[in-house]
Amino acid sequence: MAGSSFGNHFTITTWGESHGKAIGVVVDGVPAGLSLSEEDLCIFLKRRRPGSNPYGTKRNEADMPEILSGVFEGKTTGTPISVMIRNTSQISRDYSNIANVYRPGHADYTFEQKFGFRDYRGGGRSSGRETIGRVVAGAIASKILASLNISVMAYTRAIGPIVAEGTHFSQKDIFSSPIYMPDLAASAKAEEYLTACMKETDSAGGIIECVVEHMPVGIGEPVFDKLDAQLAKALMSIGAVKAVEVGDGVLVSQKKGSENNDPFHIEDGKVQKSSNHSGGILGGMSDGSEIILRAHVKPTPSIAKSQNTVTNAGEETTISIHGRHDPVIVPRAVVVVESMVCVTILDLLMENMSSKLASIIDFYQK
Amino acid sequence: MAGSSFGNHFTITTWGESHGKAIGVVVDGVPAGLSLSEEDLCIFLKRRRPGSNPYGTKRNEADMPEILSGVFEGKTTGTPISVMIRNTSQISRDYSNIANVYRPGHADYTFEQKFGFRDYRGGGRSSGRETIGRVVAGAIASKILASLNISVMAYTRAIGPIVAEGTHFSQKDIFSSPIYMPDLAASAKAEEYLTACMKETDSAGGIIECVVEHMPVGIGEPVFDKLDAQLAKALMSIGAVKAVEVGDGVLVSQKKGSENNDPFHIEDGKVQKSSNHSGGILGGMSDGSEIILRAHVKPTPSIAKSQNTVTNAGEETTISIHGRHDPVIVPRAVVVVESMVCVTILDLLMENMSSKLASIIDFYQK
Amino acid sequence: MAGSSFGNHFTITTWGESHGKAIGVVVDGVPAGLSLSEEDLCIFLKRRRPGSNPYGTKRNEADMPEILSGVFEGKTTGTPISVMIRNTSQISRDYSNIANVYRPGHADYTFEQKFGFRDYRGGGRSSGRETIGRVVAGAIASKILASLNISVMAYTRAIGPIVAEGTHFSQKDIFSSPIYMPDLAASAKAEEYLTACMKETDSAGGIIECVVEHMPVGIGEPVFDKLDAQLAKALMSIGAVKAVEVGDGVLVSQKKGSENNDPFHIEDGKVQKSSNHSGGILGGMSDGSEIILRAHVKPTPSIAKSQNTVTNAGEETTISIHGRHDPVIVPRAVVVVESMVCVTILDLLMENMSSKLASIIDFYQK
Amino acid sequence: MAGSSFGNHFTITTWGESHGKAIGVVVDGVPAGLSLSEEDLCIFLKRRRPGSNPYGTKRNEADMPEILSGVFEGKTTGTPISVMIRNTSQISRDYSNIANVYRPGHADYTFEQKFGFRDYRGGGRSSGRETIGRVVAGAIASKILASLNISVMAYTRAIGPIVAEGTHFSQKDIFSSPIYMPDLAASAKAEEYLTACMKETDSAGGIIECVVEHMPVGIGEPVFDKLDAQLAKALMSIGAVKAVEVGDGVLVSQKKGSENNDPFHIEDGKVQKSSNHSGGILGGMSDGSEIILRAHVKPTPSIAKSQNTVTNAGEETTISIHGRHDPVIVPRAVVVVESMVCVTILDLLMENMSSKLASIIDFYQK
Repeated sequence: MAGSSFGNHFTITTWGESHGKAIGVVVDGVPAGLSLSEEDLCIFLKRRRPGSNPYGTKRNEADMPEILSGVFEGKTTGTPISVMIRNTSQISRDYSNIANVYRPGHADYTFEQKFGFRDYRGGGRSSGRETIGRVVAGAIASKILASLNISVMAYTRAIGPIVAEGTHFSQKDIFSSPIYMPDLAASAKAEEYLTACMKETDSAGGIIECVVEHMPVGIGEPVFDKLDAQLAKALMSIGAVKAVEVGDGVLVSQKKGSENNDPFHIEDGKVQKSSNHSGGILGGMSDGSEIILRAHVKPTPSIAKSQNTVTNAGEETTISIHGRHDPVIVPRAVVVVESMVCVTILDLLMENMSSKLASIIDFYQK
Repeated sequence: MAGSSFGNHFTITTWGESHGKAIGVVVDGVPAGLSLSEEDLCIFLKRRRPGSNPYGTKRNEADMPEILSGVFEGKTTGTPISVMIRNTSQISRDYSNIANVYRPGHADYTFEQKFGFRDYRGGGRSSGRETIGRVVAGAIASKILASLNISVMAYTRAIGPIVAEGTHFSQKDIFSSPIYMPDLAASAKAEEYLTACMKETDSAGGIIECVVEHMPVGIGEPVFDKLDAQLAKALMSIGAVKAVEVGDGVLVSQKKGSENNDPFHIEDGKVQKSSNHSGGILGGMSDGSEIILRAHVKPTPSIAKSQNTVTNAGEETTISIHGRHDPVIVPRAVVVVESMVCVTILDLLMENMSSKLASIIDFYQK
Repeated sequence: MAGSSFGNHFTITTWGESHGKAIGVVVDGVPAGLSLSEEDLCIFLKRRRPGSNPYGTKRNEADMPEILSGVFEGKTTGTPISVMIRNTSQISRDYSNIANVYRPGHADYTFEQKFGFRDYRGGGRSSGRETIGRVVAGAIASKILASLNISVMAYTRAIGPIVAEGTHFSQKDIFSSPIYMPDLAASAKAEEYLTACMKETDSAGGIIECVVEHMPVGIGEPVFDKLDAQLAKALMSIGAVKAVEVGDGVLVSQKKGSENNDPFHIEDGKVQKSSNHSGGILGGMSDGSEIILRAHVKPTPSIAKSQNTVTNAGEETTISIHGRHDPVIVPRAVVVVESMVCVTILDLLMENMSSKLASIIDFYQK
Repeated sequence: MAGSSFGNHFTITTWGESHGKAIGVVVDGVPAGLSLSEEDLCIFLKRRRPGSNPYGTKRNEADMPEILSGVFEGKTTGTPISVMIRNTSQISRDYSNIANVYRPGHADYTFEQKFGFRDYRGGGRSSGRETIGRVVAGAIASKILASLNISVMAYTRAIGPIVAEGTHFSQKDIFSSPIYMPDLAASAKAEEYLTACMKETDSAGGIIECVVEHMPVGIGEPVFDKLDAQLAKALMSIGAVKAVEVGDGVLVSQKKGSENNDPFHIEDGKVQKSSNHSGGILGGMSDGSEIILRAHVKPTPSIAKSQNTVTNAGEETTISIHGRHDPVIVPRAVVVVESMVCVTILDLLMENMSSKLASIIDFYQK
């Protein structure tokens, strides 16, 4: 596959450049019979929209999705759903100074080396705008998961050195922070930190955490399409993510087996884990506990501070990147993480349906 | 795909259970004309063999690979290479006490829930023995990469809290430690730590680092099959890995853009990065610097210490796991990490060949 | 994969329903550096456009393609090319009488059984309009093949019982017939036959032949992704095709080995076949001769003649299908066959580039 | 994918050369809980075994399959099933005369051009022995289909010009002919024809027909993974098949819509087709009628008659191929066709399970 598709059953194919005519996604394999409208998509898109927080790009774009196919009389038909969002705020001159210069921390150099040239307008295909397609697909997947009583919630765990305390946040907790950081004291400190970053014409990174509740047991395919392996790919495929953790993540290397194993017990007649160091995944399959994931996001590479770099003619130069850039992308990326988790989980839920012969017989003999 | 295959061009399909008749791999898409023998495979397999270090299982298995197809007169023919290793040391009674009990930290519970029952002998498919197939494939991929002058080297960065210092290790540095930890002072401390773990009938985790040198620029496919995304999947698909980092990894969230961006400069007439926080990957494509990856490995879940758990009949019980278990799997997993990195990189190198029209014309018009 | 994608390297994903807002395709894996404009697409689309011959639907639709992504300053960038065509001629009342009735020979019944309901407007996803996406992709693939000096030409071999004589037709021969039947005497007879069919309120089928010239030797991947296997899938995936032949096709069963084998000889210092019963494919790979394919197309199922059928409530009824239907789809399907052949061949040409280790080394060491 | 795998859910990967150490298949995605033993595989393998009819190769090979993984206590576990058959009758000197000569009608030339050299022993990978892996997979798929009450039966429809009359054959009818031709009068004539071919040191082709009964409605994925498209690929991927027909196949081009459409009626309260010109497939999905397929098989290219050809050094020569060759492969290929149909149908049955949202909810909420 050529790289712009993800998932084997619920298959998303994103397309579009930052400053092209439009951006979008084709979602194939959507089961028939789901109520779906543009409003469902807007709920998700609103969360990644520029201007949704004070620390985002000033690019003012409505990002109105148009469903072009796959929905009839308000319901999905089982055929591919094509969704397009017109780019309405392309100002190409904003980017004219970077046409021949490689921005540090960006994909300019690698794109040009791979393909021989590049669409230099706003990062082209490597722009964060590509994630619009992911979020549209995530909105669809999320609606299906909700009908299975599975909830997926992402939030800001950290901005720079400021870390949110607590667990088991509600959606209300998350949404009450302008940066989706459900510990409001931390959220306030993080806003101060971001304000300082902006003053320094610098940028910040952070950590996005995602929790999945009410996941059936046994989802994920040994040995390469493990639940955690697919989730790691899904999250690492988001630009700016440089590390992915499951459960206790990077802490496990320092623990002993007796500390890290989660004992089992019986509760209400059901098998339960007494702790959840595993983050809800054992042997690459969901174990019935909360799934816990963390994506570590690098600081936005576009900064107004002067940086050393080179031109594509091989000359050294400096660059200061002005314009409509986010000093931090974490808040807007929260819904991208949530979307990729929804898409990944749904894909594996669909795959799992044929794991047992008894299930197949049951399905076709009713 | 059903889960046991990895890669689109250089495609590996592993099969086999710990205590079945044999274990193996089919590698399809191997280019024709590579010299290959069982000896090439043994060089890699020896590094993961039980008994290769004092902290591994006492299971004594020669792990002699047999190449069944795809090689003719000492060279690969372009057809699938099937490699089988007979399991010669299965002692089923070793595992009789766990047939009906879910071992904490293992895949017993999730396997049984997914498939309705499980091969309880030694973990069955979820056993570390499955990685034999990966290492065989890694040995083949590594030979091809070597012919392209690309080197891939993994080593032990940490065992429990003991962290190796230094960078740019040679293979000699790595192999001079019995646990593949190239900082010999740290290696000695780590051995003490492991000895203590064994006395406590407990187990340890650690960190495996992998470095790729001389990588061409532009390898990796935007936007889902990014180099880092595929590597994250590859590493997270190894049992016991709970976190994956690229370059500065989890540290990036606390840094500012001006600290994290790698400036470009010209050196010897070529574009170079002045630092390598990115770990050799920008925008999901190799950027010409060293690729740096870290996999965080949890402590071996099989411990002799008593643990609370349940039976598959829903009764609470305790379990002490005796037998041939590694107190730490990190040293033996080093070559597994290296193998998965080789396989992933080679797959994307092959994919990259058709990125430019000029390359295709050049290929077919000569 | 969910069914709407084809190809592993040059990957096309079509979307859209006959009477939805729009119809289109995303083509991923297009190599960078190809000159491409909407005009290139129109050349192909014009050949399948309604009204292009007197025996096509009266639906009058301009079918103007809009390239939404993947092209910058007139050249492909290596990123996905999304092309959309608005449906401008949807008159839903045309189809109101068939909302609850299964049209014989159509996919109404099977779609409704699979998905629980269906978009009954003009066949929805199973409409011939879906092929617009294929033709757009074919136009792109064809341009790339032309730059490799590979030519692909399809034409009408038969309409009903009228069979064109001759071989080695030029594009001029083909285009001089309004039904793309390069034997003009046969073409005239076929037109009479079609006129008679229309008078009888009936419809006709036919045979489309496709010839590929200047194909490099060795294209196609043993053993499942053989060139002929992929071509058979490509052609059989076109609605209305009920048989696919390669070379002598259905005649081979009656021949003896000595009659069917193609001897080799040397001509101009090169290996040549002395005959071409194989149709240019041996062992699933191109053998350097002309590739010859035939697709057998059933008569259009939409006829005004009264037919027995049932409603989706399980009642027997009759149906006469009036409206804008083609009495024969063969002439308009010629370019669809040509497009699918172009896409399939290009995909396998790209796959073939990594078949030899020497090629990979050559590619990366220059 | 590199070419040796087929199927997305029930995924088979064959490997092995005619005169290598062994030949085999890995079947991934087999649902857990199926009773399976080597005996089940032998029932199918016996039908393709050399020596099973007087018109097959004299190569005497037991073809004893060994199940190496994926089965525990007599049942499939959901993990990959690896099956190996040792090649016990390789006599390399039989083939020494063809090492440097391209046999007409064989893949010698194309293999050598693609990969730079070839395993010349008995055709290597392009040998009919590769189909052993397909037949093993077919035996597994067939057992699963039987548990769903779906029957798949292939038989010889024609040998050379001798065509069997009749339809709705029983397995007993088929097996009572040594060449699996259920019209015994035709079978006798065909045997005479084959005897004559052998006297002339020539070879014969034929037609294999396959019928699927009790198929659920709606199986197959629009628009590229249609049931007929996947079946066409499956059959055309068998060496020697040069044409594939569905239902009335090549006859449809000469019929009118009113003759070719199958009217619907109600029978026993269910929707039924009044005829079956479609061969059980409408719009790429099963329509509830019998699925009818035909594969046209070319005469065996290995003949003792002298043929003109060339060496790989570019010199003209002649060749007479003596040794253990089938004068007709049709009888032995019957079970290969049946196997590929079983594998294809099962794969799409599994894919179909997630087509409706209601089915997914039903599956996970019980």
